[in-house]
Amino acid sequence: MERAELTGRLAELAVAVGANVQPGQIVSVSADHGQHELARAVAEAAYRRGASFVDVVYFDPYVKRARIAYAPEETLSFVPPWFGQRLLALGEARAARISLSGPTTTGLLHDLDSDRAGRDQLPFLKEILTVIADRTTNWTVVPCPTEPWAQLVYPDLPAAEALDRLWLDVARVCRLDEPDPVAAWNERADALGDVAARLNALQLDAVQLEGPGTDLTIGLLPSSIFHAARDETVGGITHLANLPTEEVYTTPDPERVDGRVRSTKPLVLADGTIIRGLEIRFEGGRAVQIDAEQGAGVMRGRAAFDEGAARLGEVALVDRESRIGQLGTVFYDTLLDENAASHIALGDGFDLGLSEEDRGRRNRSGIHIDFMVGSDEVTVTGIARDGRRVPLLVGGSWQV
Amino acid sequence: MERAELTGRLAELAVAVGANVQPGQIVSVSADHGQHELARAVAEAAYRRGASFVDVVYFDPYVKRARIAYAPEETLSFVPPWFGQRLLALGEARAARISLSGPTTTGLLHDLDSDRAGRDQLPFLKEILTVIADRTTNWTVVPCPTEPWAQLVYPDLPAAEALDRLWLDVARVCRLDEPDPVAAWNERADALGDVAARLNALQLDAVQLEGPGTDLTIGLLPSSIFHAARDETVGGITHLANLPTEEVYTTPDPERVDGRVRSTKPLVLADGTIIRGLEIRFEGGRAVQIDAEQGAGVMRGRAAFDEGAARLGEVALVDRESRIGQLGTVFYDTLLDENAASHIALGDGFDLGLSEEDRGRRNRSGIHIDFMVGSDEVTVTGIARDGRRVPLLVGGSWQV
Repeated sequence: MERAELTGRLAELAVAVGANVQPGQIVSVSADHGQHELARAVAEAAYRRGASFVDVVYFDPYVKRARIAYAPEETLSFVPPWFGQRLLALGEARAARISLSGPTTTGLLHDLDSDRAGRDQLPFLKEILTVIADRTTNWTVVPCPTEPWAQLVYPDLPAAEALDRLWLDVARVCRLDEPDPVAAWNERADALGDVAARLNALQLDAVQLEGPGTDLTIGLLPSSIFHAARDETVGGITHLANLPTEEVYTTPDPERVDGRVRSTKPLVLADGTIIRGLEIRFEGGRAVQIDAEQGAGVMRGRAAFDEGAARLGEVALVDRESRIGQLGTVFYDTLLDENAASHIALGDGFDLGLSEEDRGRRNRSGIHIDFMVGSDEVTVTGIARDGRRVPLLVGGSWQV
Repeated sequence: MERAELTGRLAELAVAVGANVQPGQIVSVSADHGQHELARAVAEAAYRRGASFVDVVYFDPYVKRARIAYAPEETLSFVPPWFGQRLLALGEARAARISLSGPTTTGLLHDLDSDRAGRDQLPFLKEILTVIADRTTNWTVVPCPTEPWAQLVYPDLPAAEALDRLWLDVARVCRLDEPDPVAAWNERADALGDVAARLNALQLDAVQLEGPGTDLTIGLLPSSIFHAARDETVGGITHLANLPTEEVYTTPDPERVDGRVRSTKPLVLADGTIIRGLEIRFEGGRAVQIDAEQGAGVMRGRAAFDEGAARLGEVALVDRESRIGQLGTVFYDTLLDENAASHIALGDGFDLGLSEEDRGRRNRSGIHIDFMVGSDEVTVTGIARDGRRVPLLVGGSWQV
């Protein structure tokens, strides 16, 4: 397929299956400068489906760079109130939201002070966590191939060839190569839902991850249940929050996480900073030591953002049947990489399915940063409420 | 000068003289997709000057095109509430605002239905008129050369050469070629202020424009006074709302405009639509007949936007000493072209200097569209309150 056709198919998938845009809805599209071709295709697909308005917001990482380089120190964490108010208004309007993912620059902040860089969380906004928890918007995140991203993934290929290759990968993992991508995603969402149901039947109290550099036990809340793929708004609109999605995830107990964990893939933050070889030690739920081969300072800055930033808000399990895992490619982008391997997240948790009491206990933070901790060498074991140990993932394969 | 140096000088001028950004201020930058180089330079200059945040908003005309092509008919004039709320919040925050001007596409909407196109006013927002009238923000508009704009102005030159030529023009009219552009603009602002003071001393009741296709008498309100160049916020920050600025302008009586007027330059609307050979007949202040060689339908649509859209909100006089007028180039952009020639505007007027009673009488509308009606062949005569006729502009030269 030509790139224009792939762009159109991906846009259509984001609108029709990912966000599941309804006629008359306002649609928010979040893109970086440089992602305009897919953003415009998404706008066209949304208008063709009857959207009442498509609000494309472009974030410019070069403006962020100017801020970190020159803005007064004390202003670096400031965010104008209308940024968050817009998100909350999207929720009130029961809008659809589509975000484009993937790096659009490489090394843009590398020569700048990492402490200063760490203070500016944009384009992340804490209000997004409220909007997600309230389930007022039908939303999705889809990957957007760009030249800088392709060069990061395929540094040895010429720019145009690298971009073609990345588009092929994205077409593969987004199932754009299926005769009916919509049907393919409905089928995959059913399968992941079945795994979640079987995990929930085990009545787990904790999960334990064991592998090279990793021995971490993550306690669950009494009402923690595993979710997968399909979400539903308060108004009953189903959507796939991530495209692709391969994970089965839950909200852990923020006070019962102990041991140490080593990341199995690089983590690329929203601002393009790459964290490699991340190692974190937890005590009583709290990250008490953070080391990394690259980017440790930025990561410590993120974990110090607020009280909840050093505790876990998510644990997610991914098996080796994932098309992303099968490719074996490191994409330097959380959306794809987190769907290649099991992962955990520092920061805000999800209310989804939690009891009133557990909602009060789950982690709260202005950040949510996923990082990959799973691989074929990492075994995941469930510890049931009756103390029984149940193998969940061994050699990357589901045991349930 | 190299283009990078010109970009830096123009950005610095916009920040230091145009908006006159104060340390600690939030700075809003409004740009089109394609104007990112100057937008980034403005952000850098603002942060260097101590801005607390620079909020660059990119408008994408291709997304607008998708809307006009595909959105449901009844949604085309809808604007999400957060668009206007952001502007009002900028006012409440006493922010600075910098807008980049100039076409960024050519003919993008030409194959679409002009009635549908006329219903979508974006990126124009009616709340901007409130923010301007309240004088809560120190703001400026500066030209931003782009390839599509350069091709429009210099269609016979190769793209790169056309862009170089347009940059030279912009450097000339923005006085970037002066040893100290800041001092040059302070001097020019003083001179224009003197002309305004002399006009005000004449106690005019009306002005009459006479020339080819034009014989229009525009009544003034009892407290109408002429302004030029420098504005001042409620907080006492002076700024140049337009860079370049060459005009001396006032708010007319919306019920006392009679006769006919022919535009002397093409008018380019915010969405890129070009109106050529515009002719309007006024009766009792109202535009009762609108014709044009090109774009008459779009213009009639704009004039039907609301009750005030068919009446005048501004009359501005420009003499032939204008550097823009001297170049003799048609820039297809109101910011530059309106500073080449005398002009009038359909739509909202200004409160500036009006008495309480006249504020109640001045024109109100959700639009404000300037079009050029002056040339060396158009004579402007003042009609004083005592009936005396005073020549104001003859052959393009001030007579006062």
